[in-house]
Amino acid sequence: MKFNIQRNQLMESVQDVMKAISSKTAIPILSGMKMEVTEEGVTLTGSDSDISIESFIPKEEDGIVYIEGIEPGSIVLQAKYFPDIVKKLPDQTVEITSDDQFNVTIKSGHAEFNLNGQDAQEYPQLPKLQAQNSFQISVDLLKDLIRQTVFAVSTSETRPILTGVNMSIKEEKLHFVATDSHRLASRNIPVQETEETNFGSNIVIPGKSLNELNKILDDTQEKVEISVTDNQILFRTKHLYFLSRLLDGNYPETSRLIPEQSKTNVVIDSKDLLHAIDRASLLAKESRNNVVRLITKENNILEISSNSPEVGKVQDEVQADSIEGEELKISFSAKYMMDALKVINSEKVMISFTGAMRPFIIKPTEEADEILQLILPVRTY
Amino acid sequence: MKFNIQRNQLMESVQDVMKAISSKTAIPILSGMKMEVTEEGVTLTGSDSDISIESFIPKEEDGIVYIEGIEPGSIVLQAKYFPDIVKKLPDQTVEITSDDQFNVTIKSGHAEFNLNGQDAQEYPQLPKLQAQNSFQISVDLLKDLIRQTVFAVSTSETRPILTGVNMSIKEEKLHFVATDSHRLASRNIPVQETEETNFGSNIVIPGKSLNELNKILDDTQEKVEISVTDNQILFRTKHLYFLSRLLDGNYPETSRLIPEQSKTNVVIDSKDLLHAIDRASLLAKESRNNVVRLITKENNILEISSNSPEVGKVQDEVQADSIEGEELKISFSAKYMMDALKVINSEKVMISFTGAMRPFIIKPTEEADEILQLILPVRTY
Repeated sequence: MKFNIQRNQLMESVQDVMKAISSKTAIPILSGMKMEVTEEGVTLTGSDSDISIESFIPKEEDGIVYIEGIEPGSIVLQAKYFPDIVKKLPDQTVEITSDDQFNVTIKSGHAEFNLNGQDAQEYPQLPKLQAQNSFQISVDLLKDLIRQTVFAVSTSETRPILTGVNMSIKEEKLHFVATDSHRLASRNIPVQETEETNFGSNIVIPGKSLNELNKILDDTQEKVEISVTDNQILFRTKHLYFLSRLLDGNYPETSRLIPEQSKTNVVIDSKDLLHAIDRASLLAKESRNNVVRLITKENNILEISSNSPEVGKVQDEVQADSIEGEELKISFSAKYMMDALKVINSEKVMISFTGAMRPFIIKPTEEADEILQLILPVRTY
Repeated sequence: MKFNIQRNQLMESVQDVMKAISSKTAIPILSGMKMEVTEEGVTLTGSDSDISIESFIPKEEDGIVYIEGIEPGSIVLQAKYFPDIVKKLPDQTVEITSDDQFNVTIKSGHAEFNLNGQDAQEYPQLPKLQAQNSFQISVDLLKDLIRQTVFAVSTSETRPILTGVNMSIKEEKLHFVATDSHRLASRNIPVQETEETNFGSNIVIPGKSLNELNKILDDTQEKVEISVTDNQILFRTKHLYFLSRLLDGNYPETSRLIPEQSKTNVVIDSKDLLHAIDRASLLAKESRNNVVRLITKENNILEISSNSPEVGKVQDEVQADSIEGEELKISFSAKYMMDALKVINSEKVMISFTGAMRPFIIKPTEEADEILQLILPVRTY
C-alpha cells in the first residue's frame, strides 16, 4: 500500500472517523482505524460496533487532485496516535506506505514515523445494508431534527428504549420524538411518502449516535440519504457513510400525552423568559432539584421565582405579550424549560397550560405545527 | 449598607477577587467574599489564607461615576453564587443593600435576589503590611518574569521550598529563579538597587500565588509596587492589592548548577525545533517518560528521534543555523524542552551542551543575559 495525500484532506476525514472509535472497546482491533486504498481513493473506517463511520477521500474531485502515486492495499492503524501525527506533520503533503509485515511509514517533510499496524483482514466487515426503505432530506434539516429533540432522551438505562429518538413517517411528515418521561421534544418536517418510506413507526435511533452524527455533518443544504433495515440505520452523504444500530423494543405511544385543550395561554419573548428562568435557577441548582415557580399576574406579567432556604430567594418579572385564560401558579424544572426554549428558533413562544398539575406545551408562534416541547410540572407544597 | 453600582465594573472586581476564594477552606467564612462600602467606594476581599486579594472600585474616576447612593457598611456574601448572579443580572446597574440581620438584597431591572449574608466583623483582618522594603516595576515585565519561570517550580511536596519561585535583587538586577531539580528557569530585569530593595536573597513566592497573580494582571505598562516582609509579599497596583505568604526555608544556591563552559553550541530557529520535538514526543508520551533523542549531524542538521517499541518510532531533521564544537548524542524530556522553548520570546535560540550527561542551557540569541533555561539530560542505554 502506498499513496501521497493532501494533509488537510486526510485530517478532516480522520477527525470524522475518530468519532466512532473508542479506546475502551471489547474487540481490540476496533481501537484502530482501517485504511483502504484503491485506484479511486482512500477509505477510512472507524467503529465501536454501535456506530460505524466510513469516510472516502477521492483521488480527484472537481479537477483538484487529492491523492497521487496510489498502490492499492489496506492496513489498520493505531487510532490513538494517528490523528495527532497527521495534525502535526510539517508539510502539506503526506506519503503513507505499509509493507507485508504491517509496518506503516508516514513521511512528511523531513519527519518520518514508523508505526506498528495490523492486518486489515482482521478488521470486522461492516454489514452491507440491503435497504429497501430509504429517503432523502437536506443535511441542515436533519441537523435541526436532531438538535431539537435529542437533548430530551433519557440518560438512564432503566427504560433503554427511551435513550433513543423515535423516527417515523406519517401523513407526509417525518417525525422525530424523544422523551425521558418527564418531558418530551418533538419536531417534524414535510416529506413525500412513498413505498420506500414504509418502515413502520418503531424506528428508535440511539441518542448517542445522533449526537455524533450531528457533530460530523456540516450545516449544508446537500442531501443525506437515510436507509433503514430491521436493526440498523444508514446516513449517507457524498463521501460519508454513517451506520448505527437501532434500539430494540417498542417505543411508547406518545401522542396521547399531549393535552388537546388548554386553560391558560401565554405568548412571550423567548429570550426574556429564558434569561429570567436562568436567573431564578441560579440559587436553586443544588437544592430542590432546580425547580422554579411561575405565577401569572395582572397586566400580562409573569412572575418567576425560586426559594432555597439555606441560600436565599430570587424573584423576577417578565412582561408577556399576552396572558389568556385562568390564573395559574405552577412549578417546573428550570433545566427542562431552558433546554426547550434554547432549541426553539423563534422570537416568540406560546405556552399552553392545562392547570398546575398537568403537562404543558411550548411551541414557537411561527411554524407552530413543526415543533412541540412538553414538560411535566413539579408538585410543590 | 446600600449602593448602586455599574454591573460591568462590579463583575470585573468580583472575578479578580474570586481567584483567592476556595470552596474547600478550613475557615468557613473564607468561602465568602467580603464587601466593604465607604464614601470613597467599594472594596471586595477574598482570601484562602495563603493568598488574599482586595479590589477597590472607586465611587468616581476620571469623571466617570461608578457608584451612587452610598450608605456605608459591610457584609460577607456567599461567593459560590455571587459571581453568577452579577453576570446574569438583566440591567446595566445594580442596587445592593444589606440590613442588620445580614440579609442582602440585589436588585437589577425587575430581578431581585435575597441572599443570606454573614457579619463582616467575623471576617479575618488582613495583615497590614509594615513593609520597609519595596520597589516598582511595570506590570508587563512582572508578567514576563512570572511566565518565564513559574512553570519550572516543583509540583511535588517532597521539597516544599522548590514549589516556589526565588526572588532576589543583586548587581542592579531583579532575578526570578525556579527549579524542580530536573530543570531550571531563570529570568532577570534591570532594577535600581536602593536601601529599600535590601530584602536578602531568600524570598520564595509560592508558584500557585504567582500563577493567580499573572491571571489577574492585565498586560499593561502601569506600575506594580512590590513590598516584602519576613513572611509575606504584597503586589499593589492602582486598585488591586494582592498579598501572598512566602515559603519558609532556605532556597538552594542555584548558580553553581549552571555550567560555565560548553562543548557543543547550536544556534537554531526556536519554532522549528519546538515543532520537531513536539512530533517526536507524540509516540513517547506514555512510554519511557516522554524522552526524545537529539543527535548532531553534518551540514548543521539536528536529528530528533524517539522510539517506543510497542507503538513505533519517529525521526525528524531540523536545519540549524550553526553547530559548533564536539559531536553529540543526548536524550532529554520533550516536555521540559518544549516548556523552555515556548517561553523564550526569540526567533533563534542558542543551546549550549557540555556532553551527554551534563545539564545544558537554552538562551535566546537576543538579550541572551536575561533568560536562561537549564535542563538535565536523561541517561538512555
